Amino acid sequence: MISQLTQRLIDALRLLPGVGEKTAQRMAFQLLAPDNHSRALTLAQSLKHAIEEVRLCEQCRNYTDRTHCELCENQQRDPHLLCIVESPIDVMAFENSASYRGYYFVLHGRLSPLDGLGPQQLGIPQLMTRLSTDITEVIIATSSTAEGRATAHYLQQQLQKTSIRCSRIAFGVPMGGELEYLDSGTLAHALQSRTLFSASDSNS
Amino acid sequence: MISQLTQRLIDALRLLPGVGEKTAQRMAFQLLAPDNHSRALTLAQSLKHAIEEVRLCEQCRNYTDRTHCELCENQQRDPHLLCIVESPIDVMAFENSASYRGYYFVLHGRLSPLDGLGPQQLGIPQLMTRLSTDITEVIIATSSTAEGRATAHYLQQQLQKTSIRCSRIAFGVPMGGELEYLDSGTLAHALQSRTLFSASDSNS
Repeated sequence: MISQLTQRLIDALRLLPGVGEKTAQRMAFQLLAPDNHSRALTLAQSLKHAIEEVRLCEQCRNYTDRTHCELCENQQRDPHLLCIVESPIDVMAFENSASYRGYYFVLHGRLSPLDGLGPQQLGIPQLMTRLSTDITEVIIATSSTAEGRATAHYLQQQLQKTSIRCSRIAFGVPMGGELEYLDSGTLAHALQSRTLFSASDSNS
Repeated sequence: MISQLTQRLIDALRLLPGVGEKTAQRMAFQLLAPDNHSRALTLAQSLKHAIEEVRLCEQCRNYTDRTHCELCENQQRDPHLLCIVESPIDVMAFENSASYRGYYFVLHGRLSPLDGLGPQQLGIPQLMTRLSTDITEVIIATSSTAEGRATAHYLQQQLQKTSIRCSRIAFGVPMGGELEYLDSGTLAHALQSRTLFSASDSNS
C-alpha cells in the first residue's frame, strides 16, 4: 500500500529524536508533497554536506566546519574560564543567556560505562591538555541526572590533581518559578543548598 | 557560536511538520553525532532518492514509484467502490482498519480557493475520468473540517451529474468513546444523525 522508496524514507526519518512511526509517516508525506520538492532537496543536500564537513573543534569538541570553532577563535573571551558541558546544545543555551564570557569544553555525553562511554569517549585526555593553558577556573555544568552528577564527581576528582579551581553550577528553584509547581527533589535540594544572607547582600 | 553548515541544516529541518527552532537544533545535533553518520547519510540519500523517484499514481494520485501504485494494480479489490480521501495518510488509515476492499482516489488537500486549491489542483478532472470505469459507488471520506465538508459538498454536486451512487462516511461518537469526554459539536451531530432501530436490528 506504500511504495518501497517512501517506506525507506519513513524508516530513515525515525533516526530523528522523538520521531516514531506515525510522525515519520507525516514527515515523509510532507517532504514528498510536490510544493516542497525543492526545500526537501535542500534538506537532503545540507544534511549530506553537514555530515561530510562538520567535525569536532580540536580545542573544545564543539561542532565546527574548521579546525577551531568560532568560539575558540574569539580572542575577546576570558582565557581563564572553562565551562564543561555535556552537549553543543548546552553551549547554545549558555550563549543565549549572555551570562558567560569564558571558553567551553563539550563532553558529548555523560560517563556511562554500560553504554561504552568512558573518559576516553568524553575527551578527558583532550580536556587535560586544554587545562595546561591559561585556565584558572573550571565550571562543571553537566546535568543533575544521576549520570551527570557522576560525571561531575569524576571531573572534580581529576581536577583535584591540578591547581585549578573547580566549581559546579547551582541547582535550585528556577528564577520566577512558583514553589507549588516544583518537584519535591528540586525543592529538597534548594532547601539543603540554601545560602546565608550576608549583611551586604540584597539580592533576595 | 554555531557553524554555518550546521545552521543551514537546522533551517532545512524546519520544513518538517511540527518542528520549530529548538527541535530542529536537537535533530541537527543528533544527526551530526559521529555514531549516527552512516544512518544520517542514509536519510539524506533516501530523501533525495524518494523525491526524484516518487510521483503520483496516474489512477489514484497516491504516492508511488511506478506508473500505477500497488493498490491500483491489485486486481483482487472491489472494482465497483471508490473512496475519496484527502491524503495518502488517510489511505493508510483505511488500509490499517482492514475494513475496505475497494479502490481509492487521493485529493491531496481540500478545496481552499484562498490557498489556490481549486478542483484542478485536487485532480477532479482525473477523478471524473476514473469514474467512467466500473465504479458504482463513491464514498466521500474527506474530513469534518469546514473545508473538508465544503469539498464533500462540491464532490457530491459533481457526482449528481452521473448515475453513480454517492455516500459520505458516518460522523458521530467514536466506538468505545465515553460521552462525557466528547466535544459538544460531535455529540450534537451524533444526536442529529441518529438512526432508527429496525425490528431486525441488533447492533446497538
